[in-house]
Amino acid sequence: MSTSETDREAVDTGEEIMVATYRALSKHGYANLTMQAIADEFEKTKAVIHYHYDTKDDLLVAFLDYLLDRFTERLAVGEDADPNDRLDALVDELLLGLGDDEEATRSNHEFHAALLELRSQAPHNDAYRAQLTTNYELLVDMLTAVIDDGIEQGVFHDVDAEQTATLVLATMLGGRVHHITLDHENMAVEVRDALEAQVLRDLRVPERT
Amino acid sequence: MSTSETDREAVDTGEEIMVATYRALSKHGYANLTMQAIADEFEKTKAVIHYHYDTKDDLLVAFLDYLLDRFTERLAVGEDADPNDRLDALVDELLLGLGDDEEATRSNHEFHAALLELRSQAPHNDAYRAQLTTNYELLVDMLTAVIDDGIEQGVFHDVDAEQTATLVLATMLGGRVHHITLDHENMAVEVRDALEAQVLRDLRVPERT
Repeated sequence: MSTSETDREAVDTGEEIMVATYRALSKHGYANLTMQAIADEFEKTKAVIHYHYDTKDDLLVAFLDYLLDRFTERLAVGEDADPNDRLDALVDELLLGLGDDEEATRSNHEFHAALLELRSQAPHNDAYRAQLTTNYELLVDMLTAVIDDGIEQGVFHDVDAEQTATLVLATMLGGRVHHITLDHENMAVEVRDALEAQVLRDLRVPERT
Repeated sequence: MSTSETDREAVDTGEEIMVATYRALSKHGYANLTMQAIADEFEKTKAVIHYHYDTKDDLLVAFLDYLLDRFTERLAVGEDADPNDRLDALVDELLLGLGDDEEATRSNHEFHAALLELRSQAPHNDAYRAQLTTNYELLVDMLTAVIDDGIEQGVFHDVDAEQTATLVLATMLGGRVHHITLDHENMAVEVRDALEAQVLRDLRVPERT
């Protein structure tokens, strides 16, 4: 792959559009998102966005793919770490993903609210549904691999890894949706604790001291 | 409470509006739902709907409350039944709730898609969020009571009933959302099986034969 000036610029522009989309979604929500709102968060012109993406739907499918890339990049760090730590990192990232300060938490809440609106369009939007399915399948594979590694290394009990991954992903999605759609402040933490106590604790082989 | 002709008529009209709302939501989705679309599924005039509900939001909050009533009514049958059966009925109702024939399944799928759209408005709609919170809290209470009954009767192990209920409800919501937003036909069944194998089986005390 060439790394000419032009290629690098294209990658930078692509990344900048994605960052602008993240900001615009957090600020305006999904229903009120326009190409102009994205351009307003972007240093170049709206024409540059239109050059890369024909429609808002095309851009949002690319954005879902970008989210997946970022997620896997963040978690790829330490692939040879203890499966217990990798499992915790995955669950925390998926269920909480809350910022460290109040400002970041609020912005993250708004972003997940926008993402839920986008997801709610998937039953009738084939492109969204296809990309969400790709994302889901990659997450199941990642989580299954972590559990399988743990079983192989003797730190997890011998369970059906893919079935456990299916359960964990459903629980984390439901926990996120409950967290942002109910008046129940500590929901994400409660679901995380319940998952640990009722599912993950039984998975982990106690360390002999 | 009086059961005069007028009262009964009001109850019937209320019920008819709710049934019309269910049909209109399933047919048009949330975003395209209008008072007229609801009236079209209703034998009386749109004015009758407006007499009962000032706005579409008022009507939809009442509809969420109606769904909760129907749910609790269906599950109230057999409150002295075996906690194992009551738990199964609750989980099946929440996670699958699929009709017996293809037509009913498709209509149910459309309805849950519309409900997800409505839910995705809750982060910015105080009335939806308040009603969803009421519904959630009642479901947690129902599920917690079933688990506590099972523990008391010795058919369930001694677990933190409310924590288990929190986990089960998050898993079922996530499973429903995965089911309707992904190209993954048997998702609801897979999540149901995973919940049984990884959580509920450990809860149930094996029968001595």
